[in-house]
Amino acid sequence: MTDTLSDSALDLIFREARTYNGWHDKGVSDEEIHQIYELLKMGPTSANQQPGRFVWVRSDEAKQKLADCADEGNKDKILGAPVTVIIGYDIDFHEQLPWLFPHTDAKSWFEGDEEGRKESAFRNSALQGAYLMIAARALGLDCAPMSGFDQDKTTQAFFSDQPKYRADWLCSIGHGDRTTIFERSPRPEFDTFNKVV
Amino acid sequence: MTDTLSDSALDLIFREARTYNGWHDKGVSDEEIHQIYELLKMGPTSANQQPGRFVWVRSDEAKQKLADCADEGNKDKILGAPVTVIIGYDIDFHEQLPWLFPHTDAKSWFEGDEEGRKESAFRNSALQGAYLMIAARALGLDCAPMSGFDQDKTTQAFFSDQPKYRADWLCSIGHGDRTTIFERSPRPEFDTFNKVV
Repeated sequence: MTDTLSDSALDLIFREARTYNGWHDKGVSDEEIHQIYELLKMGPTSANQQPGRFVWVRSDEAKQKLADCADEGNKDKILGAPVTVIIGYDIDFHEQLPWLFPHTDAKSWFEGDEEGRKESAFRNSALQGAYLMIAARALGLDCAPMSGFDQDKTTQAFFSDQPKYRADWLCSIGHGDRTTIFERSPRPEFDTFNKVV
Repeated sequence: MTDTLSDSALDLIFREARTYNGWHDKGVSDEEIHQIYELLKMGPTSANQQPGRFVWVRSDEAKQKLADCADEGNKDKILGAPVTVIIGYDIDFHEQLPWLFPHTDAKSWFEGDEEGRKESAFRNSALQGAYLMIAARALGLDCAPMSGFDQDKTTQAFFSDQPKYRADWLCSIGHGDRTTIFERSPRPEFDTFNKVV
């Protein structure tokens, strides 16, 4: 195993990676979707909660249903993207802990504390969404995360069979068209938002 | 720029990376801390909010102060780690948007909606914490994220000069001792928590 990533690899997943507003006409295959998940699921979550629930919206019908839940500026982005993932979470993730974290009774830590579970599911599914973006980029794909949409309407439209699931944010994935990226927004100097104590 | 990461690189940041419970006696330098931040800040956040606020706890005195805020099982982990990062966020991140997202008046989108800001800061700082872990691994370091600690006490101890900052979770960083890792917890099959529609 390599000890560090090369500069070129760091460029791919961090420094040169960008958010895209348009896509080349090339789909995202089942195999690529599975490869992304096989990587993202290896990323750490608290007590291996794995609270993220992912809906990969790829058919024309499903794209239209999701676009109907999105802010005006995001409808065309969803319709035009090869696939858009709904990153959701399960407030009752603790029901899965007996098999996800089998060496102790982790389920009992969360019983009777729905607010605490919601906070933990929200935090840890966000981590998983970040792993998803890094994984997609690592596999040669591009991303466009979005939070301008109606969470409740999307939850109802895509998770109606799972009353404790919530839709949290969206991420389109495909082969990005570099002519559609905006100028990179400024990035802070270290001292602005960090301290070493 | 490379188009995809090699298998060896994917092993480093996802497949072979593990959460460590003990560390080799080798510190984390200022340069390494800065390198991690230089990578993590390139990761996407909604409207370039960059809401994460990071305290890198490295001195003996600061480690003791943080250990005093942690659950019993995490005190020794903090005292024994080369550095532990407090991943916090700024509920008033919108005050920075005039320079972080300069091409539009994004600050106005968040004014008067503290609950909405808190949700967005929480989600996006979690993404940044995931970028932090991937960046640290990419640079040859190891991680140990933790959420067993008193958030309010830690906020008071480390962010008392910033009334709208909140401590959210912790991550130790160093050169991990492979004899201290536990057996890998089970990972779900694709169909368990995903659907393609």
